[in-house]
Amino acid sequence: MASVAVEKLHGRSWIAGALAESGSNSFHGYSPADGGKLEPEYFSASAADVERAVAGAVEAAPLFARSSGMERAKLLRAIADGIDAAAEQLIVRANQETALPRPRLTGEVARTSGQLRLFAGVLEDGSWVNARIDTADPMRTPPKPDIRSMLRPLGPVVVFGASNFPLAFSVAGGDTASALAAGNPVIVKAHPAHPGTGELVAQIINAAVQLVGFPAGTFSLLFDEGHEVGARLVQHPAVKAVGFTGSFRGGRALMDLASSRKEPIPVYAEMGSTNPVFVLPGALKEKSEALATGLHQSFTLGGGQFCTKPGMVFVEEALAADFTKTLRASVTQSPSFNLLTEGIAKVFDRSVSAKSSLATSVGTEAGAGFAAQGTLLEVKAEAFLTDHSLSEEIFGPVTLLVHCGAAAQMMQAAQALEGHLTATVFATEEDLVQYADLLHVLETKVGRLIVNAFPTGVEVNHAMVHGGPYPATSDGRSTSVGSQAIFRFVRPVAYQGLPQFALPPELRDRNELGIYRLWNGKLESGSHVVESK
Amino acid sequence: MASVAVEKLHGRSWIAGALAESGSNSFHGYSPADGGKLEPEYFSASAADVERAVAGAVEAAPLFARSSGMERAKLLRAIADGIDAAAEQLIVRANQETALPRPRLTGEVARTSGQLRLFAGVLEDGSWVNARIDTADPMRTPPKPDIRSMLRPLGPVVVFGASNFPLAFSVAGGDTASALAAGNPVIVKAHPAHPGTGELVAQIINAAVQLVGFPAGTFSLLFDEGHEVGARLVQHPAVKAVGFTGSFRGGRALMDLASSRKEPIPVYAEMGSTNPVFVLPGALKEKSEALATGLHQSFTLGGGQFCTKPGMVFVEEALAADFTKTLRASVTQSPSFNLLTEGIAKVFDRSVSAKSSLATSVGTEAGAGFAAQGTLLEVKAEAFLTDHSLSEEIFGPVTLLVHCGAAAQMMQAAQALEGHLTATVFATEEDLVQYADLLHVLETKVGRLIVNAFPTGVEVNHAMVHGGPYPATSDGRSTSVGSQAIFRFVRPVAYQGLPQFALPPELRDRNELGIYRLWNGKLESGSHVVESK
Repeated sequence: MASVAVEKLHGRSWIAGALAESGSNSFHGYSPADGGKLEPEYFSASAADVERAVAGAVEAAPLFARSSGMERAKLLRAIADGIDAAAEQLIVRANQETALPRPRLTGEVARTSGQLRLFAGVLEDGSWVNARIDTADPMRTPPKPDIRSMLRPLGPVVVFGASNFPLAFSVAGGDTASALAAGNPVIVKAHPAHPGTGELVAQIINAAVQLVGFPAGTFSLLFDEGHEVGARLVQHPAVKAVGFTGSFRGGRALMDLASSRKEPIPVYAEMGSTNPVFVLPGALKEKSEALATGLHQSFTLGGGQFCTKPGMVFVEEALAADFTKTLRASVTQSPSFNLLTEGIAKVFDRSVSAKSSLATSVGTEAGAGFAAQGTLLEVKAEAFLTDHSLSEEIFGPVTLLVHCGAAAQMMQAAQALEGHLTATVFATEEDLVQYADLLHVLETKVGRLIVNAFPTGVEVNHAMVHGGPYPATSDGRSTSVGSQAIFRFVRPVAYQGLPQFALPPELRDRNELGIYRLWNGKLESGSHVVESK
Repeated sequence: MASVAVEKLHGRSWIAGALAESGSNSFHGYSPADGGKLEPEYFSASAADVERAVAGAVEAAPLFARSSGMERAKLLRAIADGIDAAAEQLIVRANQETALPRPRLTGEVARTSGQLRLFAGVLEDGSWVNARIDTADPMRTPPKPDIRSMLRPLGPVVVFGASNFPLAFSVAGGDTASALAAGNPVIVKAHPAHPGTGELVAQIINAAVQLVGFPAGTFSLLFDEGHEVGARLVQHPAVKAVGFTGSFRGGRALMDLASSRKEPIPVYAEMGSTNPVFVLPGALKEKSEALATGLHQSFTLGGGQFCTKPGMVFVEEALAADFTKTLRASVTQSPSFNLLTEGIAKVFDRSVSAKSSLATSVGTEAGAGFAAQGTLLEVKAEAFLTDHSLSEEIFGPVTLLVHCGAAAQMMQAAQALEGHLTATVFATEEDLVQYADLLHVLETKVGRLIVNAFPTGVEVNHAMVHGGPYPATSDGRSTSVGSQAIFRFVRPVAYQGLPQFALPPELRDRNELGIYRLWNGKLESGSHVVESK
């Protein structure tokens, strides 16, 4: 498939493939490296723009819902190709807008096109629809009807771009990819911290939609510096689901808006996580130094702005002298980091200052722009267990080392945890046997339980769960990363007594698509073709 | 497995296998046939009882969550056996409490034990856990970690028994069966209209829990005539999900309680549905009479108290003279029906009286007890489209015939529909071709689209979807009937880097359970055993 060229930046929303008019409210992106304003000026979408974007999505929805998986795979691959082709342009602009280093952004481009192709592969395989066929039995009393079901899309989905991944969790990120894959039109509310990157990606998506021949309303991108456009979208009666990655406050506000609608709708909000790490005695003994330096790298990676940053570390104090010493020394060597926005940098400073009573090690003093200082806080488990605020996420290059008196206190800390995206245990096999109960508790608190690796790497694959119980996400029954994310934007529909021609291809006797199906309760292989009767 | 014997009725809640104390508030079941009070007296659970039931569930949860599917299948089969063994006692008591006829209740016993065995079969098969394994690749840069995921239970689930199915949607009904199957302890809030039937079933479940050796807190049954116990349960921080079948008002109240918690939890509420039926021209021509008498049977079945009762019927007036005539005549022959409770009978009368301006045919005058008269209401499409109240469910033996001027008006009515459990189309193949757009619209409004059958039969199988968009249910992404109901009470959890011995059996290299798994993106047959490395 030919890739699509990116045009220049216009500073306006893209609604169903067309540029919105400029409006009264405008804003700019900023360079976190020096705090400077970036051109062009961006105009916030108006109430009428929101209506137009939703109307476009509503119009596109029925056709897009009935498109084949193969057709939607083409769309995802065209977007992926467009992103790869525009990689250099995207990296340059994203680097200006986020101060994330080029190697990181190069990886993020690949991650973004890679996850679009992962979903394309899921669509091409086709078995994801969970086709189930229970055939008729006219001899039974009463006669048994023919019932067939499969997953179908929900309708227009609103996606909020995240600040910390200007590509992979933004305009063509995982939420957009999974919602489109499932057959839903998408309206993205762009994150105002990287409007230029967002607009470039929107143009790539628009070109792909046109190339593959879907209705223009399949995709829209709306800008807004504040919360009004997002609130309007989430409250719009025609919007059927929401994907969000951001702060707890923002996510909970969207949840409350969605649940107080006349028709409540699902909100998939990834909201914040402190990602506890437990370093067990055997591991401390075997590799204190490597773990301490690795931890420092992990919690300062990307300026400590990963959703899975390890923000709390539990050790048995009596065994952790070397670990603690190395960790402190590493932190004092930390360079200064530039955070994504002025707001994030200010909250970081305020949050760390509020903990000034704790033992603190710091790195190089913060430099120009939206800067932050690498920071290690330390506290005794007794104090940690009585002050809930210590377990809350601080976005930025800081972690909290919790010194536990004994194994029992570590278990107590684990039991007191709220929901997180991840929990990590560094352990020898002997530790894992001895601390089996700790792992059993941690499993109930998170979406991903990790042994002997730092949580900051999030693989995009079929098994990944990037989710977890509230308050890490709004809905622990789902993941926002990996191919299982497609299941967020669908519902099962049963068809009873329909003649073959009126059924979706996935449910016809003759298994034209060669997909796996549950046929009278037995899973049938994709290659097996049921003979038509 | 030996079946378990039912003891006598005690009139008190059963908490973690033990009888609660009697309290101050008490109530009785009533006989809908004559309005008479039934013994024994039932005591409402106290706030302390709620705490005890939740504490029992919390204590049981970790052990129950880690039990094998085979062990939980034994529990479900023991409950099913106990229900079958106590069938006569259950039918007698349920008949007294609901006035539902013996043949219907005999069928409901079989449906209840049958659905418990359906879930047992799902557990014995084992593949439902959606095991996904992405193996490590140390040669990749950066090295690819080993990640494995599967579905795990949520924790204590609260189930509200329904009035209209004293067995199949009540104490050991579909919600309880699916929540237990998924590995969650269950606390049932009994429906106060059939407390005796509920208590008998609770004793069967308790005996099964004991027989199979699960913790007693795996199951509790709480009584309450009002809403206090239910509200306490839904707001309890340790409760993780809710299943409910009942009215829209009741369901929405629970949704609002759950979404305003500090930690919002999922509510699966089936709330009400008017189940539109469209009789297309070809079908009207071919079999007007059979359709009219069939419709009358369907909307008065069980006194019109099925969730899937056809409550709105759309025809093209010019073609429906015979159909309408036969339907009117059938209705005037209707016997009187006894509804489940005095409250339901009163609401029925009030709701039908409010529509007295419509053309009305009625059956035999209502007799003794909580009685209701079979009723047909008729209205022109113009009036229907301007009065939203006409599309609301009336629980009881009534349906609304909507006379449409032409096909376009039928389409207009379909587009205006809210979410329903089912939509039915009676049609010839020619009709289906000509009205393809109508079916496409209906598909987006319901959980089950039916051709040429009445919606009141709800098969319990693998493909069934008994759900549908709001306001039919709180969450259209799920079904409360059939084996897919198990997916309501689970969440995916990923395990990264765990050694084989620390993984759940479903995720170990060696596929001991012989289940289907997604291994590096390819579905592997249950019989395929991966060689251990």
